[in-house]
Amino acid sequence: MLAEFSVVPLGKGESVSQYVAECIKIVEASGLPYRLCPMGTVVEGDYDAVMSVVRGCHMRVMGMASRVITTVKLDDRRDVTGMIDRKIQSVEEKLGKEVKK
Amino acid sequence: MLAEFSVVPLGKGESVSQYVAECIKIVEASGLPYRLCPMGTVVEGDYDAVMSVVRGCHMRVMGMASRVITTVKLDDRRDVTGMIDRKIQSVEEKLGKEVKK
Amino acid sequence: MLAEFSVVPLGKGESVSQYVAECIKIVEASGLPYRLCPMGTVVEGDYDAVMSVVRGCHMRVMGMASRVITTVKLDDRRDVTGMIDRKIQSVEEKLGKEVKK
Amino acid sequence: MLAEFSVVPLGKGESVSQYVAECIKIVEASGLPYRLCPMGTVVEGDYDAVMSVVRGCHMRVMGMASRVITTVKLDDRRDVTGMIDRKIQSVEEKLGKEVKK
Repeated sequence: MLAEFSVVPLGKGESVSQYVAECIKIVEASGLPYRLCPMGTVVEGDYDAVMSVVRGCHMRVMGMASRVITTVKLDDRRDVTGMIDRKIQSVEEKLGKEVKK
Repeated sequence: MLAEFSVVPLGKGESVSQYVAECIKIVEASGLPYRLCPMGTVVEGDYDAVMSVVRGCHMRVMGMASRVITTVKLDDRRDVTGMIDRKIQSVEEKLGKEVKK
Repeated sequence: MLAEFSVVPLGKGESVSQYVAECIKIVEASGLPYRLCPMGTVVEGDYDAVMSVVRGCHMRVMGMASRVITTVKLDDRRDVTGMIDRKIQSVEEKLGKEVKK
Repeated sequence: MLAEFSVVPLGKGESVSQYVAECIKIVEASGLPYRLCPMGTVVEGDYDAVMSVVRGCHMRVMGMASRVITTVKLDDRRDVTGMIDRKIQSVEEKLGKEVKK
């Protein structure tokens, strides 16, 4: 399963990079494959492993702010793994060329 | 904490109401306050109670389809409950009138 | 087409109801059918009418804050109108009873 | 302004890469900076330029399917450009090391 998530505190100023940095520490500690994208972090793993990372990040930022907006988007395909790279490769195959990634 | 979520199967036709109905059964069985909105279901409760409902819905629809896109948006305020009604009331107070809801 | 959107300013404190109230004024001025839901505002209309409302709301809040996160989710069905009520009715028919809405 | 968007047809099978490929053609024709991420496409530009690309992609996929779910998330900072690279750099500076991206 692939998940993209973001955790944004309200009332803590307009810069959020320090909170993203805290989340990346938690993501890296999980050992799951991930990519930091401009609008969110993508993690791959089974449902419970991925959602445990999301929970850890949400709780970490809740410990630093009194209101947090967390968004999570899951793409779950039965019996499919390695989606983090394969989805982009599949688009490149359709286009017959490389894209910016 | 307030959560809005939707669980959409791919490859199962363009109508999704039967899958939403399955999810509403799970939401109602949880006993948590909820609202069915046109674009998703809103549930209120503590983090683990809400995410247990989301997990149940995701797994139920995964049992009926081989690919599922689930989106979840959390709004968590420390020490605040009763948000499901209060957020709309707060907007109505600012406007000084009732809105469509 | 149905759209749910939210417009959240960063760096303006943790309460956002005054910004939602500004957006509801713009939505109501459009004359489009809408519902204020706990996690976003749902508007129905053709693509350009709906996105013009979203643009107006985004620009209004950008005029009040230096950073804004806007999320929009569109559900577009060819030749289908009246979705704002029909989606919930369709779920109630599947369940054979009324739900909380 | 930075936008991440995805355009998913319902009722067209569970693979969506051919639709993503159509969208990437439209994104590339716009000349705007972009990144194809595993869960969506990120585009940078001013509001109207970016939303014109999103409109083009939505309409293209609507021409191929009778129901389309499009999600768009905007991050707009007044007087700030070059966000597509800078957001990730800012997190790396906070962490003092490179991340997977």
